[in-house]
Amino acid sequence: MQPKIISSTSNATIKDVARLKRKRNRYEGRLFLAEGEDLLDAALTRGIIPRQVFVLEGHEHLLESVRKAARASGGRGEAALSLFICSDAALAKLSELGGGSRVVAVFALPEPAIPPDLTGGTGPLLYLSGTGDPGNVGTLIRSAASMGVSGVALAPGTADPFSPKSLRATMGAIFQLPVYLGVEPRDLISRAKAVALDIVCADPHQGEELWSVDLRGEFVLVLGAEREGVPEPLLEAAARTLFIPQAERTESLNVAMAGTVVLYEALRQRRTR
Amino acid sequence: MQPKIISSTSNATIKDVARLKRKRNRYEGRLFLAEGEDLLDAALTRGIIPRQVFVLEGHEHLLESVRKAARASGGRGEAALSLFICSDAALAKLSELGGGSRVVAVFALPEPAIPPDLTGGTGPLLYLSGTGDPGNVGTLIRSAASMGVSGVALAPGTADPFSPKSLRATMGAIFQLPVYLGVEPRDLISRAKAVALDIVCADPHQGEELWSVDLRGEFVLVLGAEREGVPEPLLEAAARTLFIPQAERTESLNVAMAGTVVLYEALRQRRTR
Repeated sequence: MQPKIISSTSNATIKDVARLKRKRNRYEGRLFLAEGEDLLDAALTRGIIPRQVFVLEGHEHLLESVRKAARASGGRGEAALSLFICSDAALAKLSELGGGSRVVAVFALPEPAIPPDLTGGTGPLLYLSGTGDPGNVGTLIRSAASMGVSGVALAPGTADPFSPKSLRATMGAIFQLPVYLGVEPRDLISRAKAVALDIVCADPHQGEELWSVDLRGEFVLVLGAEREGVPEPLLEAAARTLFIPQAERTESLNVAMAGTVVLYEALRQRRTR
Repeated sequence: MQPKIISSTSNATIKDVARLKRKRNRYEGRLFLAEGEDLLDAALTRGIIPRQVFVLEGHEHLLESVRKAARASGGRGEAALSLFICSDAALAKLSELGGGSRVVAVFALPEPAIPPDLTGGTGPLLYLSGTGDPGNVGTLIRSAASMGVSGVALAPGTADPFSPKSLRATMGAIFQLPVYLGVEPRDLISRAKAVALDIVCADPHQGEELWSVDLRGEFVLVLGAEREGVPEPLLEAAARTLFIPQAERTESLNVAMAGTVVLYEALRQRRTR
């Protein structure tokens, strides 16, 4: 695992990897870029080994934990791993967040299969129906991991969780729980019905007060897009629809806040009732 | 209130107002820029009249609600108001959010005085001790308004709530509740002590489980910076320190999520116990 040195911004590897900054290329290549030490550490801690790691010259020590995790992974991850030491300019070509990232890693894009019962019996499933802001998607994945969600499923049209902004907002939680992409509402509805799993919709405008809804069991929590709310078919299929009571009717919460509060309430009920 | 036409980016008014994009100039001039219709509408709805409004040519209808609110405000706001119709290029000089804002308004920077009892008896006071991300500060102001907080006080070093990113995240809540700037921790501690108001610190690492803490009364909720946590003097002065229980110890919530969850729990307790 001898690292290669890259000083030129026109290096072929750099140019190739920089293409992953575009969503289309991420999904064609089934690879994504994780920028910064927080994300890399989060992956390594869970034994997830990147394909490539690019560090800024002078920060070669950051490769130590990568080597160690790769060795511990037992061969396969180690064999597929390439390490690079880059000039400032070369590393900047891979960065989308700006301002001094010292490491960028390339990971295989995970493709987990959604369990037959949707949750695997390990906690609620979070379903994002069209959340448009990548920061909100990332934040919701972080909150979901923290609040014991079994997985996060995304409707087509939801912001890409593997975009740099979303990944940064996950703070590494992307490596902790399964994220299911491109789950159509009608598939979710039919699968939930088949296994008798309740769909619970959070809506800014209608339903029961959050704290009066029993959330102790397994369920699918559906969050809508911020302006559009939850699509009609999902509202119709829902066992319960809830809203977050507010002191002032004029103000609402953003979708990441709303989702986090509902997941907190569900955890509180599981732990205290 | 005949609007002036501005087509040149080197127009003196445009240059002058564009200076408000810098924090220093905002605080010297005691003025701030609010970009977009959501913010403008939020202000007008509450009878807060801007000093200047710049609309994109072809969108002069946006001035109607401004004129109406100014007239309703009874003279003073109306007399101080100037309206401008701008070219694309001229309006772009005032924008920091990028991408098609059709209106930018200039408002006086509010300087509310913190009540002697800190809360005015109308709900918890939220104290942000060094939150560094302007989006998180704005989001917390939005959540605070939604959850019935009496006001938001900011320690020196906290991100500027009147920056464009923060304002956008408030979604107009900045016009709804008082924001107290530059409140030193020692002043907060001595004033809380003087009026026997409890300080409650939210910490990622220590304290009691959120749901076991009684939050029904008036109190000051202190949130720390994301990495540093709550400063020692505030922890020492606190009547209670709480944390948000999590399913996985390895994951935490971001500070805006954490604050929102605590404020939700306080509202839940006030409403249901």
